[in-house]
Amino acid sequence: MHGQAFVLHEDPISANCYKIRLTAALLGLPLSRRAYDIRKGETRTPEFLARVNANGRIPVLEIAGASGIRFLPESNAACWYLASGSRLIPTDRFAQADMLRWMFFEQYNHEPNVATLRFWLAYIGEENLSEAQKGQLDAKRSAGEAALRLMDEHLAKHDWFVGQGITLADIALFAYTHVAGEGRFVLDDFPAIKRWISRIEALPGFVALN
Amino acid sequence: MHGQAFVLHEDPISANCYKIRLTAALLGLPLSRRAYDIRKGETRTPEFLARVNANGRIPVLEIAGASGIRFLPESNAACWYLASGSRLIPTDRFAQADMLRWMFFEQYNHEPNVATLRFWLAYIGEENLSEAQKGQLDAKRSAGEAALRLMDEHLAKHDWFVGQGITLADIALFAYTHVAGEGRFVLDDFPAIKRWISRIEALPGFVALN
Repeated sequence: MHGQAFVLHEDPISANCYKIRLTAALLGLPLSRRAYDIRKGETRTPEFLARVNANGRIPVLEIAGASGIRFLPESNAACWYLASGSRLIPTDRFAQADMLRWMFFEQYNHEPNVATLRFWLAYIGEENLSEAQKGQLDAKRSAGEAALRLMDEHLAKHDWFVGQGITLADIALFAYTHVAGEGRFVLDDFPAIKRWISRIEALPGFVALN
Repeated sequence: MHGQAFVLHEDPISANCYKIRLTAALLGLPLSRRAYDIRKGETRTPEFLARVNANGRIPVLEIAGASGIRFLPESNAACWYLASGSRLIPTDRFAQADMLRWMFFEQYNHEPNVATLRFWLAYIGEENLSEAQKGQLDAKRSAGEAALRLMDEHLAKHDWFVGQGITLADIALFAYTHVAGEGRFVLDDFPAIKRWISRIEALPGFVALN
């Protein structure tokens, strides 16, 4: 970590951005923050696209060090960079791949449903959704509940997603799961998830989303 | 790799499954194959859910070795397992995270658009889509084209997604990109992507999807 400085380009309401803050906090790494409002299009300006991320999205981790300034988009990749060589990434070959398995599951099966319904219902407002968005509400509800059910079944038998302690898989899945109620998911239906949330919130160094 | 045997649980039409076959072929690793037809629900049977993947999806990499038989879902995680310690994963800290960045981009921005339109249009048939699916065609078209454009801009300046040779980022993105025409994307609009496809197809050990 020596000689590196980190700036998180973020929207404070985004739990994808929060994953990176939580990773840094659990590892005791200093992290500066630069805020954008995605609802005002602040990550689609020409300067942002040219300098920070051509994909027009946050989070982006800016890394200043001996190799100059570099930008790393994608929340789970930024967590991987920060946690490289730490206890948050298992070294066993299968466990490492299994951790990534849950992180890809998070981006493919969980985030597009659990996070999108939170954004649509709690931040855009159901009355402001387009017809195309309204047409997806039921499918996203059911896919989000399936993702939460799969997590709950796993956590009924294991304290953590991989191995005997917290890894990036837990951080990635915690981010939008613990605020799933804002998307009108009912966490009381998933008791093992609720116990796992309490375990994470009790960790030394834990920081909250807000 | 000593003492391990690999079985890929797959649907031969799935390019997510093909990523794993291509990774194994480029590394010269033997891989057995067990086929399922996702259109007939063969990955949602009670046996499959109990033994292979509770998420009801393929691909799943079955790994038999000293630790017994283990199952690894998620295409990109299975590629990571197979390629662990090989030239397909850079060891530099930033390059490794940057490779994962493109693999998460693939699962979040590329696959749900480029792969889904291919499946809907070439395998389900536009006339058989539900109203909810038809309502998503335009959004998926435009998001898929944005993903391809971002790739094309990167490849106009770089031969490979990360560093000076092929990595798992190229394999993950190649899988659905090279058959994007089946989803009515026009690859002639993306000349740098077309040159990159030719580079991959010319690699020693390359195997085709079909």
